[in-house]
Amino acid sequence: MTKIIGLDPGISNTGWAIIKINGKSNVEFLSSGTISTNTNQNIGERLRTIFDQLNDLISFYSPDIAAIEKIFVNKNPKSSLTLGYARGIAILTLNIAKVPINEYDANYIKKSITGNGHANKSQILFMVKQIISNIDIKCHHAADALATAVCHAYSAAIM
Amino acid sequence: MTKIIGLDPGISNTGWAIIKINGKSNVEFLSSGTISTNTNQNIGERLRTIFDQLNDLISFYSPDIAAIEKIFVNKNPKSSLTLGYARGIAILTLNIAKVPINEYDANYIKKSITGNGHANKSQILFMVKQIISNIDIKCHHAADALATAVCHAYSAAIM
Repeated sequence: MTKIIGLDPGISNTGWAIIKINGKSNVEFLSSGTISTNTNQNIGERLRTIFDQLNDLISFYSPDIAAIEKIFVNKNPKSSLTLGYARGIAILTLNIAKVPINEYDANYIKKSITGNGHANKSQILFMVKQIISNIDIKCHHAADALATAVCHAYSAAIM
Repeated sequence: MTKIIGLDPGISNTGWAIIKINGKSNVEFLSSGTISTNTNQNIGERLRTIFDQLNDLISFYSPDIAAIEKIFVNKNPKSSLTLGYARGIAILTLNIAKVPINEYDANYIKKSITGNGHANKSQILFMVKQIISNIDIKCHHAADALATAVCHAYSAAIM
């Protein structure tokens, strides 16, 4: 049995999802959600919210491994900086909790889930719902995090 | 008496400096240095090094306030991302320790120290040595951090 946390970090919304792999082809969905911060908070408070809530999640679910989308280098340097803030906090939190990190290219994740490296968010959400039945997931941030976790399950051949 | 920590965050080198302001025109230098990480470490280990060493510094010196250079938006999005990692960790660490953060534009710092908003690193180092006598500071990262701390002392009119 392996528990995987998938993450889609962002300064406003950090999607997360936890799945459990029980032997071959058995992906069990445990939980997912979004850590949200708002622009009324200063940047220190926003990063602290991500750090604290992610810490709580890791303490509660004790994932064995983390999967995270590889660096998406935005064309906009300012967006890259704030993405760096959120992603840096996620990486630090996982390091402190001794959860190893696996990174996957966005296109690789899309391809492993939908068969198409350029799938859009709705297609990913649709396929994630096919792979894991009976889940009620509406938020794209959480769906992206779940897709990243499932991608790791496929890629690491732990199923 | 006010203790100021100045920071110049970077993924490879994070310069830091601590000064003490004792009434009018009295800047006392306490310490400075550089937190260095190397490319042999993975990104999680590098961010953890910055987090742990900065935590130790704050515990030891108990600064009242922090001064940090305002977002320098690099033209290179990848550099902005890794700068975001280091800067995000510095901001988080200060937030956890309840040290308020003041941000200053790079040009404003240069101008407040040298009178010239486009001063080069050697000019900053020279002027910092004029303002604070008997300091032996060679590293530009630490000198930049010290200039940021001194800039705050001037700007906040606490001298």
